[in-house]
Amino acid sequence: MIAYLETKSPAQVNELQTQLEREYELLSGNRMALDLSRGKPAAEQLSLSEGLEQMIDGDYRAADGSDVRNYGNLQGLPEARELGAELLDVPAETVLAGGNSSLSLMHLAVSTAMQPGLWGDTRQWSSAKPIKVLTPVPGYDRHFALCEALGIQMVNIDMTDSGPNMSQARALVEADDCIKGIWCVPKYSNPTGCIYSQETVDEIAQLSNIAAADDFVVLWDNAYAWHDFEFPPTRLTPIYPLAQHHGTENHVVQFASTSKITFAGAGVGFISSGAKVLQTLAQQLSFRTIGPDKVNQLRHARFLKGRLMEHMQAHATLLKPKFDLVLRTLKEELGQWSIASWTEPQGGYFVSLDLQPNLASEVIDMAKQVGLTLTPAGATFPMGKDPKNCNVRIAPTFATLDDLGMAMQVLTLCVKLATVRQFTLTINRKNQG
Amino acid sequence: MIAYLETKSPAQVNELQTQLEREYELLSGNRMALDLSRGKPAAEQLSLSEGLEQMIDGDYRAADGSDVRNYGNLQGLPEARELGAELLDVPAETVLAGGNSSLSLMHLAVSTAMQPGLWGDTRQWSSAKPIKVLTPVPGYDRHFALCEALGIQMVNIDMTDSGPNMSQARALVEADDCIKGIWCVPKYSNPTGCIYSQETVDEIAQLSNIAAADDFVVLWDNAYAWHDFEFPPTRLTPIYPLAQHHGTENHVVQFASTSKITFAGAGVGFISSGAKVLQTLAQQLSFRTIGPDKVNQLRHARFLKGRLMEHMQAHATLLKPKFDLVLRTLKEELGQWSIASWTEPQGGYFVSLDLQPNLASEVIDMAKQVGLTLTPAGATFPMGKDPKNCNVRIAPTFATLDDLGMAMQVLTLCVKLATVRQFTLTINRKNQG
Repeated sequence: MIAYLETKSPAQVNELQTQLEREYELLSGNRMALDLSRGKPAAEQLSLSEGLEQMIDGDYRAADGSDVRNYGNLQGLPEARELGAELLDVPAETVLAGGNSSLSLMHLAVSTAMQPGLWGDTRQWSSAKPIKVLTPVPGYDRHFALCEALGIQMVNIDMTDSGPNMSQARALVEADDCIKGIWCVPKYSNPTGCIYSQETVDEIAQLSNIAAADDFVVLWDNAYAWHDFEFPPTRLTPIYPLAQHHGTENHVVQFASTSKITFAGAGVGFISSGAKVLQTLAQQLSFRTIGPDKVNQLRHARFLKGRLMEHMQAHATLLKPKFDLVLRTLKEELGQWSIASWTEPQGGYFVSLDLQPNLASEVIDMAKQVGLTLTPAGATFPMGKDPKNCNVRIAPTFATLDDLGMAMQVLTLCVKLATVRQFTLTINRKNQG
Repeated sequence: MIAYLETKSPAQVNELQTQLEREYELLSGNRMALDLSRGKPAAEQLSLSEGLEQMIDGDYRAADGSDVRNYGNLQGLPEARELGAELLDVPAETVLAGGNSSLSLMHLAVSTAMQPGLWGDTRQWSSAKPIKVLTPVPGYDRHFALCEALGIQMVNIDMTDSGPNMSQARALVEADDCIKGIWCVPKYSNPTGCIYSQETVDEIAQLSNIAAADDFVVLWDNAYAWHDFEFPPTRLTPIYPLAQHHGTENHVVQFASTSKITFAGAGVGFISSGAKVLQTLAQQLSFRTIGPDKVNQLRHARFLKGRLMEHMQAHATLLKPKFDLVLRTLKEELGQWSIASWTEPQGGYFVSLDLQPNLASEVIDMAKQVGLTLTPAGATFPMGKDPKNCNVRIAPTFATLDDLGMAMQVLTLCVKLATVRQFTLTINRKNQG
């Protein structure tokens, strides 16, 4: 992959390194404060949803006539459940609309799966020692942290352009009854941005039928279901009809939220599954809350009704130039060198950049020293351990275009310099050896 | 307690029963739909907080300049934490401001106490078999349900007019290292309405020092801290300074919410403890959520700033007539009979009515048959088991005054009829025996 450097004479490489070191030194004086670490919407995106605050306007009655200000309705407002159904491409009766955090619904699902179990029978993950789940990598650090906190071991499988490596997944779940689930971000996967193929979705819907464990669960975090850059958008094959077809709808639990549709911190989260699982989850939820914030659910249902795609197009108008800039810079600065590879997502929040082995932590440290914060090395892997130490997650959404442009220059410079340094070291070692 | 009936001749008792049976039969025809079961604010109370919706008005900046729409700030907005501090009479740095549900913060605290423990060391409740907590009874059914769901055994102690029976509490926690905590609703206790005395608060603040368990925790659910009917209000002795004095501030976890201050389903919940516990809780919370709904926190902080007492006085204006009506009816209808006792709270949401032994479930059934729903018999006791089957919780807040008047007539009639029936049965058995 570093063919470009190999065509150079030692003197040329040396000159290149000197020049890059000088550029890097110049950056140090700039006292920058750039940040590509966080998958956060920018202020302009948040402003697209300011209409939320006008949605109540004295009318606190839901469509069913209930007063949304008061207690009750653990499963959420009917119109909020319909919004969740639209997001997840499922029937509304399979959806529970919760609070502002889909992560808390994931905690509910996983901790309930552990104990007392999801199906009202004797099956519970906590009977297994150890409890394991499959984690396609690179992936989302909050999924990993949740598992770690609950004492669940993670078994990495490879992520491909069409989703998790399914022959790895199948072999593992068939062989080991301690493997109880798989984490999936099926559309614009965090961080690679891939969309699971129809074949992959169908295979995942069947996993619980071939699993050695009788309590296998697909954790389907469809966080970016509507977060396309091009319209009409690429459609993810919906898993629910396939799960119904295979009789596995109570072994697939789906999640979504409006966090990256309206207000990141003040949206509505959703969970969806088969009737049996939904009943168990609602019961377990009743030990944690009297009910969700239905006023906010009503705001959202009214605000997004009939205009979800239009709203997401407005997001895309703001986001696409940022992703274009990232991809253009990567191509311009690194393309000729062939020292890195990266994903080119058509939606979502991230670009995944793979460097030469052992360079990710160094590049992230180098960037930090000159004022650019990146997602910590290893964060896209369970326990923070990227076995090749090569993955860098780029989160371009929050920065302004100007800052993003500067940040990408810094990042690509660090990548080039670190790679040349590594190349030189390797050559020198060879010559000494 | 049934002295009145004992002064009557058998014929008089018979005549009385016949008359009550007739009155009860007449009610059956009314097809009423009355409900005194739920501790919910009435619509007029909710309307007191409609100003919440105007609090943002395009300005999403918190006092610290942060954009409340976006992710982050797991401990909550500073101004929301200050609101929680005002509610709980504690320093703001001890407070974490959460979502709409203090119950979910209770779940966080109790499940964290179980595992991995609250103090960042090896102490965790789950090491004990069984895990037990003290439950002063009658008490709040959601506390009991939470314990039951987490497999925690409950050990009942008596509730007195000044709080839990502390000699019972002390003896139990000194003797049994499986007893890990105590549930407290220290002001306007649910359902008795008592306010813990200064002496009781001080003794509770010391419990963890005398407990056999080294991981004993006071669960201080101050749900009705500001819910007075008379002003200036009766002040609860704050537990935090006492806990500091006794060095137990990391063994007291306090809860509050605005659920019965603003919108029952769309308020802000708070948790407060010592620095070590707060740090652990924040870390555990990070596995469940990215952060709370800070837009709603900002609405609340702005809306209630400097006018909390004024706002609670407006609630009192609506609530006091309802409680007066309940107490007046109980006195008028049952006072002369001396067949029941009840509490006379100066705030909160409930009146606790104690009947003759074994009559609660019958009275509640009788009321149900003529269209009056009451809190299920036993609900104020762990596992739904009222050992004397005598406690009825009256929740007068949600009903209109008219409905409440009718409901109280129905309730007191049912109490009288059930008591006379029981009296007659007892006399007949005696005569036969």
